[in-house]
Amino acid sequence: MKIICSKSNLQKSVNIVMKAVPSKTTMPILECILIDASANEIKFTSNDMELGIETKVEGDILEKGIIALDAKIFSEIVRKLPDNEVTITTDDKLQAVITCEKAKFNISGKSGDDFSYLPFVEKNDSITISQFTLKEIIRQTIFSIAPNDTNRMMTGELFEINNNILKVVSLDGHRISIRKIELKNSYLDKKVVVPGKTLIEVSKILSGETQDEVSLFFTDNHIVFEFDNTVVVSRLIEGEYFRIDQMLSSDYETKIQINKKELLNCIDRAILLVNESDKKPIIMNIDDQGMELKIHSTIGSMNEEIDISKEGRDIMIGFNPKFLMDALRVIDDEIITIYLVNSKAPCFIRDDAQTYIYLILPVNFMA
Amino acid sequence: MKIICSKSNLQKSVNIVMKAVPSKTTMPILECILIDASANEIKFTSNDMELGIETKVEGDILEKGIIALDAKIFSEIVRKLPDNEVTITTDDKLQAVITCEKAKFNISGKSGDDFSYLPFVEKNDSITISQFTLKEIIRQTIFSIAPNDTNRMMTGELFEINNNILKVVSLDGHRISIRKIELKNSYLDKKVVVPGKTLIEVSKILSGETQDEVSLFFTDNHIVFEFDNTVVVSRLIEGEYFRIDQMLSSDYETKIQINKKELLNCIDRAILLVNESDKKPIIMNIDDQGMELKIHSTIGSMNEEIDISKEGRDIMIGFNPKFLMDALRVIDDEIITIYLVNSKAPCFIRDDAQTYIYLILPVNFMA
Repeated sequence: MKIICSKSNLQKSVNIVMKAVPSKTTMPILECILIDASANEIKFTSNDMELGIETKVEGDILEKGIIALDAKIFSEIVRKLPDNEVTITTDDKLQAVITCEKAKFNISGKSGDDFSYLPFVEKNDSITISQFTLKEIIRQTIFSIAPNDTNRMMTGELFEINNNILKVVSLDGHRISIRKIELKNSYLDKKVVVPGKTLIEVSKILSGETQDEVSLFFTDNHIVFEFDNTVVVSRLIEGEYFRIDQMLSSDYETKIQINKKELLNCIDRAILLVNESDKKPIIMNIDDQGMELKIHSTIGSMNEEIDISKEGRDIMIGFNPKFLMDALRVIDDEIITIYLVNSKAPCFIRDDAQTYIYLILPVNFMA
Repeated sequence: MKIICSKSNLQKSVNIVMKAVPSKTTMPILECILIDASANEIKFTSNDMELGIETKVEGDILEKGIIALDAKIFSEIVRKLPDNEVTITTDDKLQAVITCEKAKFNISGKSGDDFSYLPFVEKNDSITISQFTLKEIIRQTIFSIAPNDTNRMMTGELFEINNNILKVVSLDGHRISIRKIELKNSYLDKKVVVPGKTLIEVSKILSGETQDEVSLFFTDNHIVFEFDNTVVVSRLIEGEYFRIDQMLSSDYETKIQINKKELLNCIDRAILLVNESDKKPIIMNIDDQGMELKIHSTIGSMNEEIDISKEGRDIMIGFNPKFLMDALRVIDDEIITIYLVNSKAPCFIRDDAQTYIYLILPVNFMA
């Protein structure tokens, strides 16, 4: 094999496929990037058996061929090469020579035959949205997946298409995050659970531009993201997602409107006093005068008044401050509306059109 | 006590004294910042018993007093307060109330009487240089102190004044770094060893501006840095520093001139192939054609040609690439000169005026 690409194109493509290179694996071949120049285009592939990424690389093929190179070493070499044309040559002993200007690297590769190619996925059902939108809905929900595997379903996000609305849901037992977007065309109804890790990695590769599009294909076992020169294939989480509709009552006793940034800054100050060992809640005391936020821990106490506009009953309620902050950080609205029932029932932060809904369970506190 | 300061002034002063707050200590009082408003100015003090810092804070004293507040909590509170006037009040039970706009923190303080004040140092001998210069000479030598205490003398830097030249030396058994600067006035000869930690912390506080000055006072046991509103007092390392003069021969067999950035980038690429477990040297092969840099490890091999101008014999010599990079990174010259004797003898990187000298011992290699 002999190919020539610019360092910047190599760098861009390596960065993309690195997202599916596992950091630890019992199969050393998975720690490689497959460089496939066996046909008329150069493709890089990586695959951790859950998530696979394939991307086309701009460049010239002088001699067709295929090789798998250690991803970490190869990416480091590419990163540190001068900004110029890079030639990658391999021989039949799987030795790769990477040259750029006067620098010349020799590393050993592995046979492409041992590599696990991406699964073949039939691309029937698909939806197309802007990369900006997909990146945003991931950012606005991903924080409330459960971090580990005690409940595998909680490590993923529900992607549900219903009446041409895409609804994305994540939950971890203490809170639920929901984002809805209207789709431009009409699509078949669909319901899949996508691994959180896949969404995190895809989100890193997406351009985030409104004019760039991404297509999502669904099968029973896989989701495929197609955008720019890149295809990402991920397994789905099998099983039925939680039924959340019965938790989403729209009844409330108290409705407040508050400046999001003021509330966020206030909670950010309050968490100074939260000890790792004794996790104290932040208490909201809401009456006609406004909202008093207070926290009291072994370190000290803090209280602050914030102006609100309020409808309904007075209420005192406690929350894990982190859960409030996570939701507030991803909401773009300047003024937000919070709905409360009583000190034992979840609060809802949502806009009128319900494009976002954040449900957070309260915690007990000693008043 | 009742004082009012702007958040930004508090922040600036807290950041300065935090540099001498120990992260671990058996004396809890040392984890505090002393706020002293007992006279006509507000002063913050911190002291880890090796290093002490005192800085004046701009603000108004409404009621005189003194208190010690937990440094970590106090600095976090200050950092997160709104950008406005901050009032700090204490009562006779050592409770401190910190208010800013509508936010109000209550934390417990400690009596100022328990605090270890900075040692009294007689300020006779002093030199004055720009903060820029001091910051630079620290940066250009600090990397070659020994990181831990197996040889205490190596954890410090020699500051020697001789014939109105300030010479700063650090060494770790593998290399020596020397910086010399000419002083503008005439000073008494002096020779002290300053703890590396002190220099690192002082360097972080220095403005780095050429028009700002810093005065250094020396006593038998202490060094004092006075600049802006701040005084830093540090113990010295006792004992006699290493005699390095006999190691600094000016004889050489080979002299080369090389573009510093090219050499640095090339070594930076080569270290990709250095394994933590088998630390391979980088080999310089110097002849009339130029310098070939090469490295060969279990990961692979790399070689690169660099143009040089050369006088004297051909030579092949191996180095720990990190030691070369550390020195190259802090030299400002575009073209540097390297002097070599043979493959067992140290190389010297120095300018003609010897304002900097970097001696690096070679390592054995199998050619």
